[in-house]
Amino acid sequence: MDMNKEIAYKASDADRMIYKFLPAEKGYQKTLFEAMNYSVMAGGKRIRPILMIETYKLFGGSSQALEPFVAAIEMIHTYSLVHDDLPAMDNDELRRGKPTTHAKYGEAMGILAGDGLLNYAFEVALGALDVESDSRAVARALQVLAHKAGINGMIGGQVVDVESEKQYGISKNRLDFIYELKTGALIEASMMIGAILGGATDDEVAQIEQVAAKIGLAFQIQDDILDVIGDAQTLGKAVGSDEKNQKATYVIFAGVDKAKQEVADLTDEAVGILQDLPYENPFLTELLRWLVRRDK
Amino acid sequence: MDMNKEIAYKASDADRMIYKFLPAEKGYQKTLFEAMNYSVMAGGKRIRPILMIETYKLFGGSSQALEPFVAAIEMIHTYSLVHDDLPAMDNDELRRGKPTTHAKYGEAMGILAGDGLLNYAFEVALGALDVESDSRAVARALQVLAHKAGINGMIGGQVVDVESEKQYGISKNRLDFIYELKTGALIEASMMIGAILGGATDDEVAQIEQVAAKIGLAFQIQDDILDVIGDAQTLGKAVGSDEKNQKATYVIFAGVDKAKQEVADLTDEAVGILQDLPYENPFLTELLRWLVRRDK
Repeated sequence: MDMNKEIAYKASDADRMIYKFLPAEKGYQKTLFEAMNYSVMAGGKRIRPILMIETYKLFGGSSQALEPFVAAIEMIHTYSLVHDDLPAMDNDELRRGKPTTHAKYGEAMGILAGDGLLNYAFEVALGALDVESDSRAVARALQVLAHKAGINGMIGGQVVDVESEKQYGISKNRLDFIYELKTGALIEASMMIGAILGGATDDEVAQIEQVAAKIGLAFQIQDDILDVIGDAQTLGKAVGSDEKNQKATYVIFAGVDKAKQEVADLTDEAVGILQDLPYENPFLTELLRWLVRRDK
Repeated sequence: MDMNKEIAYKASDADRMIYKFLPAEKGYQKTLFEAMNYSVMAGGKRIRPILMIETYKLFGGSSQALEPFVAAIEMIHTYSLVHDDLPAMDNDELRRGKPTTHAKYGEAMGILAGDGLLNYAFEVALGALDVESDSRAVARALQVLAHKAGINGMIGGQVVDVESEKQYGISKNRLDFIYELKTGALIEASMMIGAILGGATDDEVAQIEQVAAKIGLAFQIQDDILDVIGDAQTLGKAVGSDEKNQKATYVIFAGVDKAKQEVADLTDEAVGILQDLPYENPFLTELLRWLVRRDK
């Protein structure tokens, strides 16, 4: 399987679902809508939407509610990047070679476009209550989305990450907390919501949460490894930036070799749980392995 | 009726509901929780929660879902203030005599506490799906909350307001848009959600939306009038700040006398619609009149 090609194909499928919900760029709030759409359309591999769709397919889903949740998860991921890039946060003017939202539209609009995307994600996902007859599943999916994106999920991880900057000396537990929440929580939400809308039982949703947690952690550790050993040109960002930023990473705790082993172990565990389920989606298995094998 | 006393009493009732949902200040995200709670507990008259509760009572409500929505509406109002106060927006260091959230916790935490409150508002409100058997009403209330707080509601109004600063020359239509959305939308949400959870019919919810829209607009025009003629000490803010900020206001379009007449007319219309309903809540009627009669 040529994964890069497959993923590009799946991403364009996801894009079709996402774009359907983006606001038309007209009215007095035109600039807001432009800034929101610019942020969402600035690229990205649509990993979270693809994980949601493929987990949904794993369980043989046929719910009208999938598309709004696919759009919502990407809007939430996008708003988190828009706010992360703000001058008071990471102060990044470029992302994937393009001006960040605040660099293009001004800082006030960067804040408001982020707020807009977060709120609109819930508005779009709540629309699923009108199209899907299994309102219990939609309700559960909405609760997972809010919880995993929130103060005990992604935002919680982001806060602790910001507070831990320039602190080599943070504990391993604290680092685990950041990894599990900042990156892991939204990956968990993606796969869990796919499972819920696909018709998984509560037990199966819990197993999928485990799969996602392990992959999310492996993904983040891989990121640390690449920061140390990667090729700047392939990565598209400065190698060694974690060290320059005095950022505590898994590599600093464990060393590169042990970190690589941890990535391999976590991935095997995740794939193992997935393959124990009485359903099959070979692409999803490949995708999980690809996510942590990637070199950028 | 001593309205100031009555409202203080109702506000403490609302506070009890709101505080129940605030996060415990512990764990790695302790600072985030502190910043969120600081923002919510910094005061305010709890007008939106009280409007929600009293509209709910008007329809004789008995839903378990009220309390999470009362907490949610105040969290959304609060996050909007926290983000409005940021340096890139209004750059206010003080609100009601206290340091604003970013002044106390730093700008990054100001952004994240706002994001946290917005996301948590939905998380808390979505919890109502578990406690209330009338899931159709809760679903509708959630949708109203997301819509009125969002890009075609409060955020939309805020964006256009930011873009219209230092522009005396904006059109009356544009000013109406800002007034209706920036202040009006959340007042509409408060009263509509109270009505929905109270058991109102769709027609009655639409009438309540009209009442709230008129009161929201009257409230905003009254704000403009006070900025021109008010007493600085009573208001607790600098009089004439709109003119200093070259802000277009209703008073500039219409003059003080016509603006005062407009406030009186809108209030009478709102009270008229309310009194046409076959239910009674004398306190709510008094509250609507008080809101636009207030001198601070």
